[in-house]
Amino acid sequence: MKESGIGSQKIIRRKGDGDFEYLPDELTIEEPLEIRVGRKPIATTMRTPGHDEELAAGFLLSEGIVRARDQIQRVLTDDNKVVMELRDGVKLRLNSTKRFGTISSSCGLCGKTSIDAIRQDFPAVRSNDIRIDIETLLSLPETLRKAQSDFARTGGIHAAGIFGVDGKLKIAREDIGRHNAVDKAIGRAFLDELLPLEKHLLLVSGRASFEIIQKALAAGIPIVAAVSAPSSLAVELARDSNQTLIAFLRPPAFNIYTHIERVILDSA
Amino acid sequence: MKESGIGSQKIIRRKGDGDFEYLPDELTIEEPLEIRVGRKPIATTMRTPGHDEELAAGFLLSEGIVRARDQIQRVLTDDNKVVMELRDGVKLRLNSTKRFGTISSSCGLCGKTSIDAIRQDFPAVRSNDIRIDIETLLSLPETLRKAQSDFARTGGIHAAGIFGVDGKLKIAREDIGRHNAVDKAIGRAFLDELLPLEKHLLLVSGRASFEIIQKALAAGIPIVAAVSAPSSLAVELARDSNQTLIAFLRPPAFNIYTHIERVILDSA
Repeated sequence: MKESGIGSQKIIRRKGDGDFEYLPDELTIEEPLEIRVGRKPIATTMRTPGHDEELAAGFLLSEGIVRARDQIQRVLTDDNKVVMELRDGVKLRLNSTKRFGTISSSCGLCGKTSIDAIRQDFPAVRSNDIRIDIETLLSLPETLRKAQSDFARTGGIHAAGIFGVDGKLKIAREDIGRHNAVDKAIGRAFLDELLPLEKHLLLVSGRASFEIIQKALAAGIPIVAAVSAPSSLAVELARDSNQTLIAFLRPPAFNIYTHIERVILDSA
Repeated sequence: MKESGIGSQKIIRRKGDGDFEYLPDELTIEEPLEIRVGRKPIATTMRTPGHDEELAAGFLLSEGIVRARDQIQRVLTDDNKVVMELRDGVKLRLNSTKRFGTISSSCGLCGKTSIDAIRQDFPAVRSNDIRIDIETLLSLPETLRKAQSDFARTGGIHAAGIFGVDGKLKIAREDIGRHNAVDKAIGRAFLDELLPLEKHLLLVSGRASFEIIQKALAAGIPIVAAVSAPSSLAVELARDSNQTLIAFLRPPAFNIYTHIERVILDSA
């Protein structure tokens, strides 16, 4: 059960007609995962088990702790722990790891504005010749949904998909946490040495927060689409980073927030 | 604009009929908040500005860092920072603060199972005589929605409401993050010395994760209801903590996962 990310238990359901039934129900599994770099614990995240190695890779990439596939010697996974071992000579970027919150005595955020403290120094995306047409864009949510097994059953799991601009789904991942689903998807691409994903689009099943845009940026993705709303800071970062941000992608409607030039508006 | 948690910008919208319009759109504000206890940075969280002092109080409460209102000398807020000053003699519970992830050299999670590492030692709720009837339960989502100004406009904001079992809304808070909305609501109650909230119910607009249940437990809340799905670990914690967990609360239907005895099933 655990491997699939789905558990089961008995519940009492009140149905639409007011009657009650006692029946088995499926639940999304949520468990803590500890991510270490060597012997150093970096973070503990609540996630849906499965693809833990990708989750750790995507997380460390988007926090700027690892930058290239060849920095990683090997990845060990053990139940609820992932240990990423760096190659000899690769230095752990402590500055970045300090940003998770707790630092025993030093002052991780002093002298920085808050935005600077969370914002990594990823370069803006460079791909300006990538464009997507409306028909393809409108097809993406359905394609992602079809790749999801769990979401329909529990309603409690998020999905992230990396697509080509031709609408072809390359990588789809699910997790109880939105950020984790994105980490798993870009982590897979990172481990497969596919970065930067400059001809690709990231679709997320929920909202587009600052962190989602930054994770896409870490992977070099020029177009991000979300089924729900973007935040103010997500829009700001996408604008600065030369990323196209589309949200409320609910066919036949959608909103474009930044860098509209990558959407072929007259194609439909 | 910032005070209200709402910003604005121009977007391109593709409408249902395939036409495009260029129009102003509202966005949920997302900005980082640094939480300090005295001079020690504890965490930086992405949140919607407003009620920052409550957010910090609720966060520190549910992480077990503060336990009682009288431990707090005063709370200073400054743009994107909250500093909680403890009374002389109140010791910062370092064990708890170590759980956020990054510790320079020591080993915050060693020798513990992962669950133990994230699970605080809050006692199970004691109130067994509190019950809610179905009609009241079904009224809660609409009551919370009416108290929300922002959600309807952006779709990008979560809400948490603390209700009496008579269905009366006591505290409603919104935030781009689900956990933050809950922190703000229980933080307000904590600052007002209303804990434990043993005659109350917490309603969240999204999913019920482990952390949501644990935050409710920190505030002594015996009934938690969610509009979307619960996770496996949320169900487990609620069961162990003598909390009633209701999810998929979408009138006229809902599911009861744990401690059904607090729902009066024959009232409707």
